Amino acid sequence: FRTGTGFDVHRFEAGDHVMLCGITVPHDAGLKGHSDADVGLHALTDALLGAIGAGDIGDHFPPSDPQWRAAASDRFLAHARDLVTAAGGVIEHCDLTLICERPKVGPYRPAMRARIAEILRLPEGRISVKATTTEGLGFTGRREGIAAQAAATIRI
Amino acid sequence: FRTGTGFDVHRFEAGDHVMLCGITVPHDAGLKGHSDADVGLHALTDALLGAIGAGDIGDHFPPSDPQWRAAASDRFLAHARDLVTAAGGVIEHCDLTLICERPKVGPYRPAMRARIAEILRLPEGRISVKATTTEGLGFTGRREGIAAQAAATIRI
Amino acid sequence: FRTGTGFDVHRFEAGDHVMLCGITVPHDAGLKGHSDADVGLHALTDALLGAIGAGDIGDHFPPSDPQWRAAASDRFLAHARDLVTAAGGVIEHCDLTLICERPKVGPYRPAMRARIAEILRLPEGRISVKATTTEGLGFTGRREGIAAQAAATIRI
Ligand SMILES: [Mg+2]
Ligand SMILES: [Mg+2]
Ligand SMILES: [Mg+2]
Repeated sequence: FRTGTGFDVHRFEAGDHVMLCGITVPHDAGLKGHSDADVGLHALTDALLGAIGAGDIGDHFPPSDPQWRAAASDRFLAHARDLVTAAGGVIEHCDLTLICERPKVGPYRPAMRARIAEILRLPEGRISVKATTTEGLGFTGRREGIAAQAAATIRI
Repeated sequence: FRTGTGFDVHRFEAGDHVMLCGITVPHDAGLKGHSDADVGLHALTDALLGAIGAGDIGDHFPPSDPQWRAAASDRFLAHARDLVTAAGGVIEHCDLTLICERPKVGPYRPAMRARIAEILRLPEGRISVKATTTEGLGFTGRREGIAAQAAATIRI
Repeated sequence: FRTGTGFDVHRFEAGDHVMLCGITVPHDAGLKGHSDADVGLHALTDALLGAIGAGDIGDHFPPSDPQWRAAASDRFLAHARDLVTAAGGVIEHCDLTLICERPKVGPYRPAMRARIAEILRLPEGRISVKATTTEGLGFTGRREGIAAQAAATIRI
């Protein structure tokens, strides 16, 4: 067994929705990024890559590469899933925490969990999505962006 | 085996002590929160919930619910412990890191560890409490609040 | 199995290189610290200590102790490795994430991974080094310092 962790941040920009864990969440801002800026799926992708020592998301999908412009991040997570399998690993559990004041994550958590389970081809019982705020402190508290941290446990 | 992680932040307000890991720590400020604002126990509660995919502390104990006003956070952690047991899980290890400049955590760590072990009904050898600063940087560095991160490994 | 996590931050100061994961990385600033300020090795040391409940790096190597002034941090990590062994543990996997805008970590990651593997006497396949930015947000985004987070899984 091994646990990898991931951390990611994206900054708000003008817009009317954000992509979080593969779900479109209405908001009074968007998230800036080369891809769809799905901070949740990025953190989780890095956690899986970290568990098998396969580099990080920036290695596999360089922001400098035009083919990933506006890409849906489920492709990144699916790639990490396939790398775990190719390495002889099995994903036991994924736990994700979204850190922001807004948008309110709660109402979207069941859909986020279902979508991650679908991408990873796992039962929902092996996926956890949580949310917290920083009580107005720091860049997430000032609503400048969203942070996400993930932990992935694999058997290998 | 599965590892869940938790993260929490509370902001300083006027006061003369903080609750950290179930221990009263004298300080020149208090921590603001609906409950007793025990950032350490909150992060650990979320780590346990994350390990079994049982939502987050805000689901189980909504800040909007008056019954949790000024509540002692050991109730939250005990509830997560019971949910792990009910799910057929056994807590193998809990590791907690408190992030702040002040108060100095060191002198209180043995008592914090003993208290968490007591709440979780585990030997102290399965509980870790650590502390670090951010060297004056960010909101913890400016002494605006305390952050905590936790990892909980369960067998299930 | 148990997973411990570690978190550390060091602040930039005048200088022309930083020590990261035991590797000298040229940069237009240095990192301030009592030891060599190797934020990556410090986070990893704390993750190992956390996995066995052996306190934190500040307990074992107090910044107030002149003998650790300008010390190479591989000594700290080697000490944690020995404590894991003495506790009857085996290190299964270590995953480290460096969080900064600059220096660019990518070109140094293979050397960092090899150096950590050497210190821990493990095959490189059991070591992961990743990097991310905070997209210009927070103290890492303002290039005031570097943060590192680590996860260590041990069998015990
Ligand atoms: Mg990203
Ligand atoms: Mg809280
Ligand atoms: Mg340090």
